[in-house]
Amino acid sequence: MRAEIIAVGTELLLGQIVNTNAQYLSQKLSERAINVYNQSVVGDNVQRLSDAIKSAFSRSDMIIFTGGLGPTKDDLTKETIASYFGLKLVRDEESLTNIKERFALMRKGQPFPKSNEKQADMPEGCIILHNDDGTAPGGIIEKDGKIAIFLPGPPYEMKLMYEHYVDPYLAKKCPQKFYSKIVNIMGMGESYVAEQLDDLLSGDDPTVAPYAKEGEMMLRVTTMAKSEDEANKKMEGTIKRIKEVVGDSIYGYDDIPLENVVYSILKEKNLTLTTAESCTGGLIGSIITNVPGVSSYYKEGIVTYSNEAKMKYLGVKEETLKEFGAVSCETAKEMAEGALKNTGADIAVAVTGIAGPDGGTAEKKVGLVYISVADKDNTVVEKFQFTGDRQKVRRLAAKNAINMVRKKLLKIF
Amino acid sequence: MRAEIIAVGTELLLGQIVNTNAQYLSQKLSERAINVYNQSVVGDNVQRLSDAIKSAFSRSDMIIFTGGLGPTKDDLTKETIASYFGLKLVRDEESLTNIKERFALMRKGQPFPKSNEKQADMPEGCIILHNDDGTAPGGIIEKDGKIAIFLPGPPYEMKLMYEHYVDPYLAKKCPQKFYSKIVNIMGMGESYVAEQLDDLLSGDDPTVAPYAKEGEMMLRVTTMAKSEDEANKKMEGTIKRIKEVVGDSIYGYDDIPLENVVYSILKEKNLTLTTAESCTGGLIGSIITNVPGVSSYYKEGIVTYSNEAKMKYLGVKEETLKEFGAVSCETAKEMAEGALKNTGADIAVAVTGIAGPDGGTAEKKVGLVYISVADKDNTVVEKFQFTGDRQKVRRLAAKNAINMVRKKLLKIF
Repeated sequence: MRAEIIAVGTELLLGQIVNTNAQYLSQKLSERAINVYNQSVVGDNVQRLSDAIKSAFSRSDMIIFTGGLGPTKDDLTKETIASYFGLKLVRDEESLTNIKERFALMRKGQPFPKSNEKQADMPEGCIILHNDDGTAPGGIIEKDGKIAIFLPGPPYEMKLMYEHYVDPYLAKKCPQKFYSKIVNIMGMGESYVAEQLDDLLSGDDPTVAPYAKEGEMMLRVTTMAKSEDEANKKMEGTIKRIKEVVGDSIYGYDDIPLENVVYSILKEKNLTLTTAESCTGGLIGSIITNVPGVSSYYKEGIVTYSNEAKMKYLGVKEETLKEFGAVSCETAKEMAEGALKNTGADIAVAVTGIAGPDGGTAEKKVGLVYISVADKDNTVVEKFQFTGDRQKVRRLAAKNAINMVRKKLLKIF
Repeated sequence: MRAEIIAVGTELLLGQIVNTNAQYLSQKLSERAINVYNQSVVGDNVQRLSDAIKSAFSRSDMIIFTGGLGPTKDDLTKETIASYFGLKLVRDEESLTNIKERFALMRKGQPFPKSNEKQADMPEGCIILHNDDGTAPGGIIEKDGKIAIFLPGPPYEMKLMYEHYVDPYLAKKCPQKFYSKIVNIMGMGESYVAEQLDDLLSGDDPTVAPYAKEGEMMLRVTTMAKSEDEANKKMEGTIKRIKEVVGDSIYGYDDIPLENVVYSILKEKNLTLTTAESCTGGLIGSIITNVPGVSSYYKEGIVTYSNEAKMKYLGVKEETLKEFGAVSCETAKEMAEGALKNTGADIAVAVTGIAGPDGGTAEKKVGLVYISVADKDNTVVEKFQFTGDRQKVRRLAAKNAINMVRKKLLKIF
C-alpha cells in the first residue's frame, strides 16, 4: 500500500507551527510497512486542496489528512474530500451530541453556536471516528479502491484518534507490524558496543541498530510480527546476547528515565540519597525530584558553588582546596564523604567541575568534571572530560552522576 | 511573489526526523511578505521530485529546496532541478577546493573520495551559495521567470546559508520586511493586558499580538519596514505605551531568559543570592546557574526536602511545621529568613509546595506553592495555586521564584 499525508492549515504555511503530525503519521505508517510517498501542506483553500487530492490519488492508494475540521468557514477539508468522491455531507446525530457535550464542558455557560453544527456533517457512508479529546470527529472513506482518512489538526487529538481507531483499522489490512525494543546504555562507547555485537548489527531479523543520545547510547531491536507476544519471542535471543555483552551498562529499556531507575532501587533497598553539587548548581537534585514519591529517599541536598560553602556544609579541608583546587579528585571525594557524614544519608553523590565558557586553564580544561559517590563501604571518584557548551557539560555531569549512583546502589563499584 | 518549499529526503517520509526546515523557511518568507502556497516532502527519487517541481512551478514563482545535495548516488536534487531547466552541471573549482578543505578538517587523514567531487557540480550559470558549516554548496537559478533555490538538508547549514546569502538575495526583490519586537511579561494576566491595550491590539501598523507562554505572556509588536532602524522608529510609541501600562511586569525583551535578567541585576548591584528549595528540588539553583559567571553572586543553595532538613539548615521551627505544615506561608517565610541568616547572602528565595501527583488534601491542593523572598529590609511571601502535572508545577514555581527575586532586587516589593 502507498500512502500520502496532507496537512491542511495556513498556520503551517506561515511557519507558526511545525508539522509534527506528518512525522508521527509517517512513523506509524512505516511501522505497518506502508510506504509514504509524499507529505504535503496546503492552506485552507478548496482549489489547492482539491488539486492536492487529485495528484496524491494519481500516485497513491491512501491519503491521511490532518486539520481543517474546525467549525469555521475556513475549515473545508471534509467538504473537499467529499466532493472529490462525489459524496454528500450528512448530519450525524451521535457526533452532534458529542460535540455539544464537549462544548458545554469546555465553555461553561456559553450557548452552543449554530455554526458549530457543521462539525457533525460527515461524508455519507464514511466510518466515523470519535474524537476522545475534542469536538471534531474524524472519518474514513473507502471508495473506488482509494482510502481517505481525515483527522483533526491538534496533535494530541490526532494521536488519540490514530491510536484508538485508525491503527486498528489499518491492522486489518496490514496485519504485520514492526515492533521495537530499545536497550538504554550508559558508560560504554558506541563503537565498542558495535564491534562486540557486529554479528547482531548485520543481522536481518531482528535488526539491531545503534543510536547515539547525549552522553549515552541505545540499541533498537526491531522485528516484524503479528502481535507483541510474537515479537517478544522473536527478539528474546537477541536481547539476551546484548545483555551478555553490555551487562551492567544497560540501565533500562524503552527509554525509561535514568532517575526512575535510581528511584526504584532506592525504594526497593530503602536507602536515602543526598547530593552535593557545584557546577551542576542543583540540576542533579532537580532531576532526581522529577520522580513523584522520591521525597522519602531524597531528603536534602546542597549546592556548594563557592569554596566557603564546600568547607562549611561538607567539611572540605582548606588545604585540599588550596593544594588540589576546587575541581579535583580530592575535593570531589571530600565533598561526597562530607555530605554522607553531615546528612546521615546512605549514599552521597558530589560533583565539581568547570562548566565554562570561562574558568578553564591549560591543565584543567572547560568540561573537566569530577564525580564522586560514597556510601558506608567506600568512595569512588571518576574523572570526566566533557565537550560541548556550558549547558551540555552540566547535563552530562548530572546524567553521569545519577548513573554513578545507580552503579553504587547495585554494587557495580 | 508566490513560493513553495520542497524538502527532499526519505528520512522525512519515514518519520525519522521532523521537517523543521519547512517551518523555518516559511517563517522567513512570511517576514518578507512572500506567500508560501505549499510545502511538500518527496523521497530521493528523480521521477517523483521531477513531478513535484512541475506542479509547484505551475502554481508558483519560486521553489526553495532543502536536502539531497550530499555526495551519494541517492542525492539527486541538483541534477533534477538542472534537468527541469535544461541546464548542464558544470564543475565549480572554488567549491571543490572548499569541499576538500572541509573534508580534510572533519575526517583527518582519510583520503578524499572521488565520488564526493559531485558536490561541486553546479547547474551552469547558477549563483553559487557557499556552505559555511558543511561541504555541499547551495545555489540559485533564475530562468524563464522562475526561481529555484537549493539548500542543504542539515538545519544548521541550511539556516546559515539562508541568513547569509538567500535573505540578502530576496531583500533585493522584496525590500520590505516584517520586523518584530517581543515584550516579555510575568505577573500580569493576558486578559488584563489585552483589555488595557485594546486600542493597540486592534491597531494596524504596528500590530500588537498577545501570546501565552508557560506561566508568562508576551506581546509581539510587528511592523513592515526597509531597515531595523526604520522599524524601531515605527514601533517606538507603541512600546512606550506598553511600558506605561505593563510597567514592572515587563522583565525583558526579545525572549531574554529571566535568569539572565536576574544575573545582570545581581552583578550591577553586586549582591549575592541564596536558594532554599523544597518541591523544586534544585531546579531554581540549576536555572540560576545556567548563566556563566553567576558563581560570584550565587555561592550556595540548599535543597530541603524533609522537615528535618528545613529545621537543620534553615532554622525553621518545629512548632511552625507542626502548626502550619511544611507547605505554608509561615514555613516559606522562615525558610527564606533562615537561608538569609545562615548563608550571609544579600537576598534569599525559598519555595515550599505540593508538586503532586500525590500529597494534596482538600485544603491544600496539588499545585499549592508558597514562595518567599527575604533581604535585610523585609520578607515577602506569595501564595500560588498552579495547575498542571508535577513537572509543570515545579517549572512554574521555579519561574515565579526567580521573578520574585527580580522584583525584590528592583525594590518592586
